[in-house]
Amino acid sequence: MVAGVRVGAATTVFGVSNAYGMPVVAVIGDGQLARMMQTEAIELGVETRVLAASREDSAAQVFGDVRLGDYTDLADLRAIADGADAVTFDHEHVPNEYAQLLIDAGVSVEPRPDALLYAQDKLEQRRRLSEAGLPVPAFAAIGSVADAEAFWDETDGQVCLKATRGGYDGHGVWFPATREECARLVEDLLGRDLPLMAEKKVAFTRELSAMVARNRSGEVRAWPVVESRQDGGICRVAIAPAPGLSAELARRCQDLAVRVAEGLGVTGVLAVELFEFEGETGPDVAVNELAMRPHNTGHWTQDGCVTSQFEQHLRAVLDWPLGSVDTQAPATVMVNTLGGEDDPATPMAERVAAVMRKYPQAKVHLYGKDHRPGRKMGHVNVCAGSVEEALAVAEDAAHYIIHATWKD
Amino acid sequence: MVAGVRVGAATTVFGVSNAYGMPVVAVIGDGQLARMMQTEAIELGVETRVLAASREDSAAQVFGDVRLGDYTDLADLRAIADGADAVTFDHEHVPNEYAQLLIDAGVSVEPRPDALLYAQDKLEQRRRLSEAGLPVPAFAAIGSVADAEAFWDETDGQVCLKATRGGYDGHGVWFPATREECARLVEDLLGRDLPLMAEKKVAFTRELSAMVARNRSGEVRAWPVVESRQDGGICRVAIAPAPGLSAELARRCQDLAVRVAEGLGVTGVLAVELFEFEGETGPDVAVNELAMRPHNTGHWTQDGCVTSQFEQHLRAVLDWPLGSVDTQAPATVMVNTLGGEDDPATPMAERVAAVMRKYPQAKVHLYGKDHRPGRKMGHVNVCAGSVEEALAVAEDAAHYIIHATWKD
Repeated sequence: MVAGVRVGAATTVFGVSNAYGMPVVAVIGDGQLARMMQTEAIELGVETRVLAASREDSAAQVFGDVRLGDYTDLADLRAIADGADAVTFDHEHVPNEYAQLLIDAGVSVEPRPDALLYAQDKLEQRRRLSEAGLPVPAFAAIGSVADAEAFWDETDGQVCLKATRGGYDGHGVWFPATREECARLVEDLLGRDLPLMAEKKVAFTRELSAMVARNRSGEVRAWPVVESRQDGGICRVAIAPAPGLSAELARRCQDLAVRVAEGLGVTGVLAVELFEFEGETGPDVAVNELAMRPHNTGHWTQDGCVTSQFEQHLRAVLDWPLGSVDTQAPATVMVNTLGGEDDPATPMAERVAAVMRKYPQAKVHLYGKDHRPGRKMGHVNVCAGSVEEALAVAEDAAHYIIHATWKD
Repeated sequence: MVAGVRVGAATTVFGVSNAYGMPVVAVIGDGQLARMMQTEAIELGVETRVLAASREDSAAQVFGDVRLGDYTDLADLRAIADGADAVTFDHEHVPNEYAQLLIDAGVSVEPRPDALLYAQDKLEQRRRLSEAGLPVPAFAAIGSVADAEAFWDETDGQVCLKATRGGYDGHGVWFPATREECARLVEDLLGRDLPLMAEKKVAFTRELSAMVARNRSGEVRAWPVVESRQDGGICRVAIAPAPGLSAELARRCQDLAVRVAEGLGVTGVLAVELFEFEGETGPDVAVNELAMRPHNTGHWTQDGCVTSQFEQHLRAVLDWPLGSVDTQAPATVMVNTLGGEDDPATPMAERVAAVMRKYPQAKVHLYGKDHRPGRKMGHVNVCAGSVEEALAVAEDAAHYIIHATWKD
């Protein structure tokens, strides 16, 4: 039986719940990641429903079955899970105890809370990865000012403070400049009951992202490792494959991501964000962050790979075999269209049309969001014969979408 | 102004109607073509609505905004067009007088009825193409048995009778074996008030399809010409590019399709189905049918081209610049998964999973339809280094989806 899985004691046929013998997937989270899952679900013939806060949200605009509700409300979670073959997320913020209650009731929730925990809690993650012998920066739990001062001295002041939970896109991360500033900051944050950890700052040369998908049965596939360029903690550019990365180090990054996926029992897409730094014997990497869902550094796969991260995520949570991760071109570049300081007077449709005129090869993706400075509103993917060409086109195209002016 | 078009006397900015400065497209028709337009609309950030007969229809399952109604009801058409920047179709059956009333009221309806007419009425189409010097088989209007007998004699009995309107997928086409059968058939059909024409049968070696898109401003792009293989008048396989087609004849097919698009003023995707036959000086072509919408022989572009026919159709009807039609691989093959005589006991989800396991490179597309023998329920696209490889994989994969058994 191809798609049979064990649920509790009984073996049941998995994922044939709808009228056409196809599965029903409930997506919790109404952002662009859920929206782009819907694109792939439509083509696969997978039936979907989404739990959204409002009908205007990015994903809610494009699902046929929209359930309004709150992902921290158990009744709403139970309702959307009812009759679904799989429940998955476009974020990591569903309370783990509620996800576990659904699982206990026989619902297939993927990724599972015992894996998700390591994407939610940075300190637990560092401990677990470190125990597994995976490369992480030096770290410490910070329960007092004394802890912070000790870590400051140990690392010669190379201190990054992090909220162990709730941070994203650069939020919840601090870089104190002095021992005194560090102490004051820790006192303040602990006073606000924020659980803290400290990490030794990595003098990284660039950031990489190693993405894999793992299905329930344990099949794993790794996409090519990409270089990601951040701006104020927000991903702005992804370049696939990462330029100048040796085959040896690329394989090491992929193996690392596979070990994380297997070690933590992740189902679905996993992004392992990495620091690349100059080690004693050459370029080396350490884990920065984990995300257990489709990730911004994987948007390039929509146009640059046979199987996109969104299709792969659906296949993984349904325990379907994973698709080919072969690339479509020597280079693919993704550039986010982050809301600029001002919203140009030129309507978005005209900006899109201008980009299409100048660059017939550019793939414009928009999320149905209104303007807010810095907001992830869309992205542009460009495949080309070289990184230089793909990057130049994608940067210029994204610039026009954001500013209604060309780069040069 | 990038996206400005003239509507009646006034120049208006076109397609910025929604809250995000993006256009709203109303799709009339609830089949798989509308469904696959939705996939592309989501990524482009184009807002959509669909006029569907029921919530269960293929497209209605996946649109956020579904209006139940009848495409032959003027009030329903007016309601779905209200506030839309463009109205388009996934079939050619909207009454032209209603489409014209919408246009007269300032709605952008594309393709327009004065173009659509030539996809609806085979006799008008033959006359028009013939006048334009485009290659069509010998033909005649059949208003009496005498007309039919005269055409029989003229063509040495190589007669194909066609209903001038309403035929599709082999319906409305007859091949009488004798002069007497031809006369009886014509008497019967005319007695049922079916408008008729006759055409000289083409001794074709294979069928080709030349697809182009043309936007409102007149920009045209032609995809590579494909070979299409029919089964009982229904498209079953498309092979891109058509194997063994000389560059010269391929260019001639593309030029022909461009001339049809320009000559008839088609907006959107146009499929020109062609007969290839052995002419006096080598392989030659004649026009078989026209379709003014995304077409089954263009499904391969979803995975085989930078810009799919569904994205291109949306761009064209919005008067956006057209996208690159570069291919992703040396060969792409599409095989339809037409409902078999029996519906296998193996649920569809398990069939899909089996195909994914055997062929990680196969792209499975399903339309959310229940089983009916011969019904277009989905298709499989496969890109490969050679036609042979792509064809073998796509045929075997489609066979499993249909029958739950492998080909060999």
